[in-house]
Amino acid sequence: MSFNTFGRLLRFTTWGESHGPALGAVVDGCPPGLAIDESLIQPFLDKRRPGQSKFTTQRQEPDQVRILSGTFADESGVCRTTGTPISLMIENTDQRSKDYGEIAQAYRPGHADYAYDAKYGLRDYRGGGRSSARETAARVAAGAVARLVIPEVTITAWVSEIGGDAIDPDNFDAAEIGNNPFFCPDAQAAARWEKIVDEARLAGSSIGAVVECEASGVPAGWGAPLYAKLDSELAAAMMSINAVKGVEIGDGFHAARLTGEQNADAMRPAGDDHDGPLFLANHAGGIAGGISTGQPVRLRVAFKPTSSILTPVESINRSGEATQVRTKGRHDPCVGIRGVPVVEAMMALVLADQKLLQRGQCG
Amino acid sequence: MSFNTFGRLLRFTTWGESHGPALGAVVDGCPPGLAIDESLIQPFLDKRRPGQSKFTTQRQEPDQVRILSGTFADESGVCRTTGTPISLMIENTDQRSKDYGEIAQAYRPGHADYAYDAKYGLRDYRGGGRSSARETAARVAAGAVARLVIPEVTITAWVSEIGGDAIDPDNFDAAEIGNNPFFCPDAQAAARWEKIVDEARLAGSSIGAVVECEASGVPAGWGAPLYAKLDSELAAAMMSINAVKGVEIGDGFHAARLTGEQNADAMRPAGDDHDGPLFLANHAGGIAGGISTGQPVRLRVAFKPTSSILTPVESINRSGEATQVRTKGRHDPCVGIRGVPVVEAMMALVLADQKLLQRGQCG
Amino acid sequence: MSFNTFGRLLRFTTWGESHGPALGAVVDGCPPGLAIDESLIQPFLDKRRPGQSKFTTQRQEPDQVRILSGTFADESGVCRTTGTPISLMIENTDQRSKDYGEIAQAYRPGHADYAYDAKYGLRDYRGGGRSSARETAARVAAGAVARLVIPEVTITAWVSEIGGDAIDPDNFDAAEIGNNPFFCPDAQAAARWEKIVDEARLAGSSIGAVVECEASGVPAGWGAPLYAKLDSELAAAMMSINAVKGVEIGDGFHAARLTGEQNADAMRPAGDDHDGPLFLANHAGGIAGGISTGQPVRLRVAFKPTSSILTPVESINRSGEATQVRTKGRHDPCVGIRGVPVVEAMMALVLADQKLLQRGQCG
Amino acid sequence: MSFNTFGRLLRFTTWGESHGPALGAVVDGCPPGLAIDESLIQPFLDKRRPGQSKFTTQRQEPDQVRILSGTFADESGVCRTTGTPISLMIENTDQRSKDYGEIAQAYRPGHADYAYDAKYGLRDYRGGGRSSARETAARVAAGAVARLVIPEVTITAWVSEIGGDAIDPDNFDAAEIGNNPFFCPDAQAAARWEKIVDEARLAGSSIGAVVECEASGVPAGWGAPLYAKLDSELAAAMMSINAVKGVEIGDGFHAARLTGEQNADAMRPAGDDHDGPLFLANHAGGIAGGISTGQPVRLRVAFKPTSSILTPVESINRSGEATQVRTKGRHDPCVGIRGVPVVEAMMALVLADQKLLQRGQCG
Repeated sequence: MSFNTFGRLLRFTTWGESHGPALGAVVDGCPPGLAIDESLIQPFLDKRRPGQSKFTTQRQEPDQVRILSGTFADESGVCRTTGTPISLMIENTDQRSKDYGEIAQAYRPGHADYAYDAKYGLRDYRGGGRSSARETAARVAAGAVARLVIPEVTITAWVSEIGGDAIDPDNFDAAEIGNNPFFCPDAQAAARWEKIVDEARLAGSSIGAVVECEASGVPAGWGAPLYAKLDSELAAAMMSINAVKGVEIGDGFHAARLTGEQNADAMRPAGDDHDGPLFLANHAGGIAGGISTGQPVRLRVAFKPTSSILTPVESINRSGEATQVRTKGRHDPCVGIRGVPVVEAMMALVLADQKLLQRGQCG
Repeated sequence: MSFNTFGRLLRFTTWGESHGPALGAVVDGCPPGLAIDESLIQPFLDKRRPGQSKFTTQRQEPDQVRILSGTFADESGVCRTTGTPISLMIENTDQRSKDYGEIAQAYRPGHADYAYDAKYGLRDYRGGGRSSARETAARVAAGAVARLVIPEVTITAWVSEIGGDAIDPDNFDAAEIGNNPFFCPDAQAAARWEKIVDEARLAGSSIGAVVECEASGVPAGWGAPLYAKLDSELAAAMMSINAVKGVEIGDGFHAARLTGEQNADAMRPAGDDHDGPLFLANHAGGIAGGISTGQPVRLRVAFKPTSSILTPVESINRSGEATQVRTKGRHDPCVGIRGVPVVEAMMALVLADQKLLQRGQCG
Repeated sequence: MSFNTFGRLLRFTTWGESHGPALGAVVDGCPPGLAIDESLIQPFLDKRRPGQSKFTTQRQEPDQVRILSGTFADESGVCRTTGTPISLMIENTDQRSKDYGEIAQAYRPGHADYAYDAKYGLRDYRGGGRSSARETAARVAAGAVARLVIPEVTITAWVSEIGGDAIDPDNFDAAEIGNNPFFCPDAQAAARWEKIVDEARLAGSSIGAVVECEASGVPAGWGAPLYAKLDSELAAAMMSINAVKGVEIGDGFHAARLTGEQNADAMRPAGDDHDGPLFLANHAGGIAGGISTGQPVRLRVAFKPTSSILTPVESINRSGEATQVRTKGRHDPCVGIRGVPVVEAMMALVLADQKLLQRGQCG
Repeated sequence: MSFNTFGRLLRFTTWGESHGPALGAVVDGCPPGLAIDESLIQPFLDKRRPGQSKFTTQRQEPDQVRILSGTFADESGVCRTTGTPISLMIENTDQRSKDYGEIAQAYRPGHADYAYDAKYGLRDYRGGGRSSARETAARVAAGAVARLVIPEVTITAWVSEIGGDAIDPDNFDAAEIGNNPFFCPDAQAAARWEKIVDEARLAGSSIGAVVECEASGVPAGWGAPLYAKLDSELAAAMMSINAVKGVEIGDGFHAARLTGEQNADAMRPAGDDHDGPLFLANHAGGIAGGISTGQPVRLRVAFKPTSSILTPVESINRSGEATQVRTKGRHDPCVGIRGVPVVEAMMALVLADQKLLQRGQCG
């Protein structure tokens, strides 16, 4: 079954393949009256855009977004959301379908090829079709709309580990994130990663990465007790991103190694220097019982290495015969890097949805 | 917003608090004609039932399930599902509400108390109310129904780590899982854990755990490309369980440390000794591009230590004043242990749903 | 596919068959803090309860509702909703399954028997199983909860036509509705209907009816432009009631005979004697473009005659052979009468849901 | 709350305003492998297209549809659905926004203007924005895709009544429907309607209409017992069409005037001249207990007269002051006529969805 819609009150539906004429998203349920135009969306797409350094795919895509519906200029000329569906379209321009002839018949190990064929009986193999990382452009555009719904929230993501080499928490400097092609908050790690990623690129190989994300300004009370726990909504959102295979909220797997005493996020009364209760720790990642606590919401996401590598790998073709596959074409040596704006977008989409849900149920 | 329904075609809705008269689940969308009666559900509840060893909460609950609707005895007297909603009820019997007087006013650090109050403005504090781990009994009952939908699938979960002490993969013996109170497949680890958990119990402390789950027999083709990726559905399901803070599909975070060559699950043609293609590895946990590959579906789930501990922790009360909280009552020293049947139930519910979805869309 | 859940933010799920041990509803998404107990629900069930006059089925059911979850007594002892799912259960007591032996094999014309068998391959034939009008008891209980969410709205339904004999609008007197067993607002019509329904009853026949419903106090702005138009939500809700085959909003089919001039609901400014704009007519039934206008929301619902009649009708049995069927058992000669509280309940459920949705999206 | 998605497994989302750059639909969940291209969709849009006779709006729109995603040419060059979302776009070309200056401030009685402002606080008044009948072009395109899913079903709609003047059932001739600009199956009625509609047009007035629709070839077993009754799904679908205020399944309101004997659809065994059971009547419109019976599914839909009329009507402006409104611009004198392909499209979308649901749940 295909489900290309995500969200409960603020919902978005994405469509489009890597090598079709365009891709896009329809954002439904957005509150009315929010100032919006393409200039508020484009910067996020630019951040995700390929071809900006040698560390990402060399495919050249301007990724210009167009708003096709759902907005209207008020008397003072300010374009605002009307509460009706916002259709966002991004045209594909740099498609080289000829690169993909070989994989029409063979299954690339680690890719979705075999599974798609097993499910649908056919697949659009050009650039991975719907399974291409290009789909995330539509998410990033939708996420930019979601950010308008939650101006009180600040969302920041970064890469904290590439190929097993992690940042040093003591070196964390948010201002550094925009200074290097890796969204790395640790200048020393960024320098090391340059070499690591370049080696992978030159070898026609690929490497994995971990992306972390923090949302501050989330008030206490968003989320739900069980089947729409904020942890659960975020995990679903993050796991829906291509190449993601793990999600941790707060301490995640590390919490499984703690005692109750170590893991308790103690509280103190509101004081002169802070509103609301003061938490003395945030092991829970800002979510208790599925509901936000007012602390920063924190999570970690594992991106596997892309399966598009130049090294031949044993595989089979559509007839079930043995073959070897090496993936030509232009690919990201470390797809986790461009995952940063995507993780931010999904965080924004989940939180905006939760804000509306909380307002709906609890007034 | 509360959402107590999970699933798309096979949906279940749970209700009930720890200290109310009963709790239950309504399973909707179950295919007709499946042989069913309480005896097919009760064994799974018995597996989860508290009070069976000193390593779990001493609350005594028979957890007898009753089927209130959705079944009918055919001419030969076999009780079968009719395709209409199956209502399952479990009465609460061992409630000691007096244990909870103290926490009516104070917020237990790490618990949902503060977040519930922030969200709803009030909360049922008896035994954690809706946030009690007792809710998982309803899931386990629903999961037993889901298993009837997927007889081709075998689901097994176990504890692989407690308090940071992991099993030795070389000692893995599935037959061992039922031989100890920890669902531990490694007899040596089970012996060590006895001491670890007992120490935590005697100290009034708690410890975390990791649960792993494998589903074999899942055919290739279940799942969906993006927003209902099988990874995403499973992550949402697992993260909806109380105390879960991390989910990994296949290699999970470990995959972020691999190269594309290391992570590739190579394939070979069907052979004399196996149907379908042979995968030479399963880093992907049986899911590629969000769709099952025919390999075993594998995942890992992190349970934090419960926050109910006897050590006093700094906190605040409902008036925002400083206080200290220690949680009396009967609690699990390691809630991850009883998480095993719950993880299995959620796996069954997700897979059964996906089977119906696949049949619906792809025929 | 079975879908036994209705609603978007305020959702309810019903379960249970006519001859099972019980039936019930789970109401999810109800706002927290509303004063609630069984005494606020029971009166609506009493209104629907069978066996109260000779004009409805003689089945005797006390229809006592129990609240099993989702409420909690606050410090002052007032029981309030907690925002978690409210489980409502009604036990079946007067079941005479032996009455149904004959129809186990034969299909009652006009009933769901044949269609259920075609869909599911089996059916619970006792009392119609899930297709029994008893299911509406669960809706009425859920509707009573929904009314708590919309105290600003007053909902009144009545029977306006039985067996083709309509009330005289000039005789409409809301105070009369509770004075006769037909929920008839026209005392003269009520007198005529006594004879009409009694004749049908004595002949073992049945007759159809039209129920009308008005909700006043609905503010302007509830509903949505297209696929969740308030008209559409209400139509789906009403058509989901057993025996309903037609729904009109406002003038309904009559509007198809008007000109634009005749159908226009002109407006005048707010005046001394009224808030908001004054509408000079309400052809639209209080809904324009799918959104409430602040006028009373009005609709009409057609109930067919029940198919349970004593006259033998040509039919077939499960083997496809010719047979004749007459339905013994205790049935409503005019099921539309007891439809009145059901129509009110569905109106309440839709409007309460829309209130939450409007608050969620538009603040 | 805006909900612009309809359907459960086969879902479509529409977007776009009357005077924006384009409008469209995303069809999700369509089974893979169906032959498709624009030429299979365009004829349905052409049928709905405005400006084809003097009896519909004079707006000139080519309504050319483009498929932007979800299809792929197989080896033999046949374009097929891939199971991924199908994005359909129709560009707007003939927009005269200047016609709408006057209604920016005044509320047109009977229109959605006042209700939109009450809901959203602002509105796109150009051509009615999202409430324009142009939105139905997106439905018709989506409906053409849905027809591919149900080749076994034949759907035909027609106008059966205009301005209160009904066809004579004895004159019904399906072949006649395409022979006149009214989709009228009665040649004599068509002749009368020419005069009726022309008078309304010349007077700057508008008139209502009734559309009927029949789907033959629907097998027994589609639909569901209660909250997704086939009646309920169809009613919701039809009531979501602009200007629709009433829906009847089968005999509809007429059934409320029948006795159980008159209303019973008797059955006979399968015979030489027919498959399956023979029903001797179809009062139920092919749906019993919410589930299809194998008979033709029949329904009737009431379209009110459009509120866009040249006669001035009393109204108020956004400041709440009295004004008079007459709607200039190009409008349909009888919007029900162009409702015919829209009703067919919604019928196709509901039935295709139900086919997939039935296959999913009941195999």
